[in-house]
Amino acid sequence: MQGPSGEFNSVEARFARQVEWGDCDPAGIIFYPTYFRWMDAATWAFMASVGFDARRMHAEHRSMPLVSADCQFLVPAEHGDRCEVRSRIARFGGKSFVIAHDIVRSDGTTVAKGSETRVWGRHQSGPGTPMKGETIPESVKALFSR
Amino acid sequence: MQGPSGEFNSVEARFARQVEWGDCDPAGIIFYPTYFRWMDAATWAFMASVGFDARRMHAEHRSMPLVSADCQFLVPAEHGDRCEVRSRIARFGGKSFVIAHDIVRSDGTTVAKGSETRVWGRHQSGPGTPMKGETIPESVKALFSR
Amino acid sequence: MQGPSGEFNSVEARFARQVEWGDCDPAGIIFYPTYFRWMDAATWAFMASVGFDARRMHAEHRSMPLVSADCQFLVPAEHGDRCEVRSRIARFGGKSFVIAHDIVRSDGTTVAKGSETRVWGRHQSGPGTPMKGETIPESVKALFSR
Amino acid sequence: MQGPSGEFNSVEARFARQVEWGDCDPAGIIFYPTYFRWMDAATWAFMASVGFDARRMHAEHRSMPLVSADCQFLVPAEHGDRCEVRSRIARFGGKSFVIAHDIVRSDGTTVAKGSETRVWGRHQSGPGTPMKGETIPESVKALFSR
Repeated sequence: MQGPSGEFNSVEARFARQVEWGDCDPAGIIFYPTYFRWMDAATWAFMASVGFDARRMHAEHRSMPLVSADCQFLVPAEHGDRCEVRSRIARFGGKSFVIAHDIVRSDGTTVAKGSETRVWGRHQSGPGTPMKGETIPESVKALFSR
Repeated sequence: MQGPSGEFNSVEARFARQVEWGDCDPAGIIFYPTYFRWMDAATWAFMASVGFDARRMHAEHRSMPLVSADCQFLVPAEHGDRCEVRSRIARFGGKSFVIAHDIVRSDGTTVAKGSETRVWGRHQSGPGTPMKGETIPESVKALFSR
Repeated sequence: MQGPSGEFNSVEARFARQVEWGDCDPAGIIFYPTYFRWMDAATWAFMASVGFDARRMHAEHRSMPLVSADCQFLVPAEHGDRCEVRSRIARFGGKSFVIAHDIVRSDGTTVAKGSETRVWGRHQSGPGTPMKGETIPESVKALFSR
Repeated sequence: MQGPSGEFNSVEARFARQVEWGDCDPAGIIFYPTYFRWMDAATWAFMASVGFDARRMHAEHRSMPLVSADCQFLVPAEHGDRCEVRSRIARFGGKSFVIAHDIVRSDGTTVAKGSETRVWGRHQSGPGTPMKGETIPESVKALFSR
């Protein structure tokens, strides 16, 4: 499941989002934390697409806390622009994983590129109890393999 | 504790907030949902000011779900404007209460006026369990009385 | 174009939105300002559906500042819930208009009902210049008529 | 003005912020894009502290578009936590600069560390016109020097 470059050979998920008025700032372009909101939503949608939807994640007391996140802003997106977050697993670690996100405008321009490093975690004794990272099972990794 | 007009004779809480770049939209003025975010934060700060801070609310599994909210936008606030949310209890019902918020700019101009109607609720069996409204004790009402 | 009740006989626009992780609060339900963000986005989408898309609004220096907004929260929506904002013009005034929004979950439950009162405005001399309300032309009203 | 490690020897700005209910997610901890909203606001406050407040930035048609941003999340902050964003200039390039932000809780714990790379830009012909990067004057750099 490793690509030649050491990258995980991942399926790609696509999450559509239009730039809204309230996503933009007085310069008339997207306010940058918006991209991180999109990346978070895209990751949840990606999980749902392989069987871990919100209901299941909740029932199993799972969460995916962040270790780090970054984004490069290549072209300013504007109100009304139709975009797609294209997400793939860049790497699986023992208990953590990296999701790479390309944000592509409908004209094919990549407007931003980001990544999130997350832990595969679970609230061991239900809601409100401490969260612990768990070793990511091979069966879970396989769900993302192309 | 009722004023002559039937309003609750409430103490007033003040919550300071400056209009941030990301709070504004491409018209260069505050994006209106920002006021509701401020009113929510001001309500939590108001609760904290009478002894129900976040830690206690959490420990007692309390929450304050909304029944309704409204706001009138009088003057457009701009990036950098220093504002204060002035909050008071407008009315106590059996299990619900109304908080009135005036949003006042540092030059004394009221830029917006809103209100929230909320339930005094508790997750009966802890986090993740159903929330039920509770009769607001007189001892709690007294905390807000002027 | 007036209905029997005095309401404008409006077309209805539908704007789909799923409740995201970041739209929710520690009680596990939607954070209420989210609904106002949705209503704002739904209004812009409604305008676009009759020919006033973001590009045209921007080129014509138009904006739609708020006079007031309100929402009733009927049922708490949760992470993953698929919703639709159903918007219609409730009333046209001289320079202002009221948009009514029903937020309906995919199981048919109305989770919230809100409205926005807005001015039909224009930055007279382009970006950064003062905004003035304009009389809403009959030709514009006709675009929303059923 | 360069420190021994090649870092700019920068003054430090402090921006206070309490974690609000609406900043948190269903796991009960801060929703990570919140940190980027804070970093953006902290940068604007930093600019204001050296004389470039919102009013002046606006009058001079200045903006500070992002090239990239990143954050490491060290400890999960919770509703009610009092935090401070401590910002300094990490590096000045020709037309760009890097701001490093430490987010420190009132108990002294660093909960997150991030950075933003921004362009020193100006809308050459006023609002709504294209933004161009400008060489950062030495007089501006000097304002941030310790």
